[in-house]
Amino acid sequence: MRSRAERRRNWWGWGYDDAAMTDEQVASLGRAVADRLGTEVTPAPAPRLEDVSLPACRIDPPAALAPLCRDDDRDRALHTYGRSYRDVVRGFRREHPHPPDLVAHPENEADVVALLDWCGSSGYAALPFGGGSSVVGGVEAVGLRERYAGVVSVDLTALDRVLEIDRVSRAARIQGGALGPVLEDQLRPEGLTLRHFPQSFEVSTLGGWLATRSGGHFATLYTHIDDLVESMRVVTPTGISESRRLPGSGAGPSPDRLFLGSEGSLGIITEAWMRLQDRPRWRGSAGVRFDSFAAGSEAVRALSQSGLFPTNCRLLDAGEALVNAGVADVVDGGALCVLGFESADHPVGPWLERALELVADYGGTVPEGEVRLRDDGAAGAGSGGARGGAEGAWRGAFVRAPYTRDGLVRCGVIVETFETACTWDRFPALHASVTEAVEAALAEVCGGGWVTCRFTHAYPDGCAPYFSVLAPGRPGDELAQWAEIKAAAAEALLAAGGTITHHHAVGRDHDPWYRRQRPEVFGRALAAAKRELDPAGILNPDVVI
Amino acid sequence: MRSRAERRRNWWGWGYDDAAMTDEQVASLGRAVADRLGTEVTPAPAPRLEDVSLPACRIDPPAALAPLCRDDDRDRALHTYGRSYRDVVRGFRREHPHPPDLVAHPENEADVVALLDWCGSSGYAALPFGGGSSVVGGVEAVGLRERYAGVVSVDLTALDRVLEIDRVSRAARIQGGALGPVLEDQLRPEGLTLRHFPQSFEVSTLGGWLATRSGGHFATLYTHIDDLVESMRVVTPTGISESRRLPGSGAGPSPDRLFLGSEGSLGIITEAWMRLQDRPRWRGSAGVRFDSFAAGSEAVRALSQSGLFPTNCRLLDAGEALVNAGVADVVDGGALCVLGFESADHPVGPWLERALELVADYGGTVPEGEVRLRDDGAAGAGSGGARGGAEGAWRGAFVRAPYTRDGLVRCGVIVETFETACTWDRFPALHASVTEAVEAALAEVCGGGWVTCRFTHAYPDGCAPYFSVLAPGRPGDELAQWAEIKAAAAEALLAAGGTITHHHAVGRDHDPWYRRQRPEVFGRALAAAKRELDPAGILNPDVVI
Repeated sequence: MRSRAERRRNWWGWGYDDAAMTDEQVASLGRAVADRLGTEVTPAPAPRLEDVSLPACRIDPPAALAPLCRDDDRDRALHTYGRSYRDVVRGFRREHPHPPDLVAHPENEADVVALLDWCGSSGYAALPFGGGSSVVGGVEAVGLRERYAGVVSVDLTALDRVLEIDRVSRAARIQGGALGPVLEDQLRPEGLTLRHFPQSFEVSTLGGWLATRSGGHFATLYTHIDDLVESMRVVTPTGISESRRLPGSGAGPSPDRLFLGSEGSLGIITEAWMRLQDRPRWRGSAGVRFDSFAAGSEAVRALSQSGLFPTNCRLLDAGEALVNAGVADVVDGGALCVLGFESADHPVGPWLERALELVADYGGTVPEGEVRLRDDGAAGAGSGGARGGAEGAWRGAFVRAPYTRDGLVRCGVIVETFETACTWDRFPALHASVTEAVEAALAEVCGGGWVTCRFTHAYPDGCAPYFSVLAPGRPGDELAQWAEIKAAAAEALLAAGGTITHHHAVGRDHDPWYRRQRPEVFGRALAAAKRELDPAGILNPDVVI
Repeated sequence: MRSRAERRRNWWGWGYDDAAMTDEQVASLGRAVADRLGTEVTPAPAPRLEDVSLPACRIDPPAALAPLCRDDDRDRALHTYGRSYRDVVRGFRREHPHPPDLVAHPENEADVVALLDWCGSSGYAALPFGGGSSVVGGVEAVGLRERYAGVVSVDLTALDRVLEIDRVSRAARIQGGALGPVLEDQLRPEGLTLRHFPQSFEVSTLGGWLATRSGGHFATLYTHIDDLVESMRVVTPTGISESRRLPGSGAGPSPDRLFLGSEGSLGIITEAWMRLQDRPRWRGSAGVRFDSFAAGSEAVRALSQSGLFPTNCRLLDAGEALVNAGVADVVDGGALCVLGFESADHPVGPWLERALELVADYGGTVPEGEVRLRDDGAAGAGSGGARGGAEGAWRGAFVRAPYTRDGLVRCGVIVETFETACTWDRFPALHASVTEAVEAALAEVCGGGWVTCRFTHAYPDGCAPYFSVLAPGRPGDELAQWAEIKAAAAEALLAAGGTITHHHAVGRDHDPWYRRQRPEVFGRALAAAKRELDPAGILNPDVVI
């Protein structure tokens, strides 16, 4: 179990060194992309750590904390950025003007308290760092070296234990720094699972998921991690907040909901009691084809409003279906719905059957052999046997995508994803205006490019569209080009009634639009809470609050 | 539709005058209760308004607001209290030492803003008042006449319109003062329903539900009103907060969750976009008998963890089954599970069938003819045809219960309900210790009494037990006796790991225990938010914050 943690993290790109694309893979990727974008692509070598030059560390930890702190180049470079496209480009370019002075690795909650005390009394900024997979600029120190005498990145991944399991209530007390695979490994022997699988699963932590309101495995119902929380323990500079472990409550505003989404600006989540699932035994899936994305989205709306609660219900446009599910028979302008049900309690046949009736009402068809029902048997529940068809292909591509992105960065290609949520009545106009705005921006700043769309989550009252962008970059100008595309997308989303983020979080990248979206009154309430809990303003400054 | 609003409200007891128990009904109730408690019961006549003497109104509204304000005895007496047992006893006794000076009846949001401006600039307390059905002392002015030069009860029931319906997303924009039947009447022509049916449905408002995190119709899944909110509009003394209409979001901490549960202490909810349901067409129900409450609760746990999401899943002990569902064949110490499924999309046979298999694993049995499956047909969906069996009986008794309680007050009987939620692992010990503590208190302060228990809601990780108490009162001492019973129950709940309230709210009655339950750090954050949004401290002082 611990062996995962000992795999070496990539200091500039996604995930682990041993999973990065090889030079040969990047070269092959470059040829494929050159074909699709109609440009020339010349892959560059991966950056070398010895070519990185970092500003000196300015601070010394007190003797008691020194054993927890590191100032070597590798750790500081690794903790300089999250892992957005922009971060990877900057890492790839070996641009590290604002690394943390130190990286602290607390081993327990007392260490976290001591670190915040030290930072608070010294006027140092403290940046909570989970798996470091932020794609919104949520964990960096840009602008902070100038305002704080020291900047400490607080890496929480040593707080990685499942401390207690309540089998009867299907819940566990888990430390905030546990990475996805690390916590799942500890739950598996009990036949339990959190079943929260964001794309960053391998390199993100429970505390990070909670702090950013992460979106996971379930396409309907329990979409956000928020709904899986029983209670949280949060270290703030002025005390520890621990909520009561409850299945539901109506006693005043929810304490947990203040910290969910606070992105490290109010406190550090050291533990949470999380609601778990039994490992599923029965599964059903189908890849449903539609002639138009509009028809597919109407079908997904009907499914979302049916009370069937499919586990998977992703709608992919033709481009996404090809790249991410290996499905080539979706007509141009059409869509693929990757539909799945799972249960630990009962065969899902009746659920899938009704779902297929429903989608047929909207013109959805399933090729012969593409409806799958499976029973893993009591012994095999959750054994993780390979999924077939569109669903299986989709999952494989999903987890690999960020590694591929690093390869694209080496090819000089601009690659960005952005996501939102809106009510069903607004979706057709949002889809049209966002696509148009981004295509216009791509034409202007890149001379063209590729935009695709899928749904990551669906609700009775709306959906969560997710857009992917691929465009040729001009060497050296990629980040300026990226910024123009990003701004065009964000403006269009906000104007069309969407949210600036459904599950990627706010960080620095979404901040200008978040401020416009957030009720001014609520913003003042949050700022007042921050002043009370973090009077010295040391926790993740400039983020959210 | 408006005719309901014109029915005359009972100024001292529950609901409407025309639905109150008659003298004959109270006499008959008295004989039944005397039999059960083994005491003598002599019903007293209902109080007369002309015997009430109120402290004078101390303030004059400005000319612009005068048409909205009333100071007649009936309105001030009606708005002096909520409708807890303690409130009804005080009303029945004609004890009204702290009525509001005035009752304001704003007709639109601008009126609400103007009223708060006036109160703020004059140093008057403003008490938001929806349907006035608080059972926790949430809407009264005790202790406020001494500290504020004026106290204004702000009755919001004139803001009662459904302003907009989005049929595609199944959502509606509804004013905060709409009573349950008033808003359902406006949704029915569209075939839609909020399906939030707390026991107070007739005399509680959308804004009140939101402000108190009300629990409703659905026994599983969408238990609290919280989950049905798309966005809210809240008038605070320093501005209006309006959140964006979204099916889901991850952009910072949820603005709505700060106001949900704030019980009028941060602002007045004037509008909300609410998620609706299609009116159900297919229904299935069964009354499942268990030999022990423990076996029944294990079965409900299995149901809650099955992913079947029954609409109704109430577990009643033998006493509750007899009184509230008219089911007399539950063995002493046994339990009845009132199980129900409903859907607007599909026949619920497979769901009910699997649920009955599950409960059978725990010894649950259903008498012949007690399993019902119904299809109302497309035209009849939601026509409200009578439900049969235990479920139908349970519903009828549920709505009438608070009227019966007023009759019991006239009989000098102490009647109280309290509720909580806890994780499954803690439930057996909580049930035992709470029952024991309350029975001991009843023996000591009343010489005996009756405690029964049911589940109102069930979750994958826990349940929401609801206790009812019936005991003979000593004339004149009832409230002191009640307070001792209440304190014994609250102490036992908290010690056993429950919440002081799952859906009744905090108000003044639960405040001492709420303060102990709430994380101190979060309490400070809330207080800071209150100082920012309501710097003069005029909104529902002493409640929650």
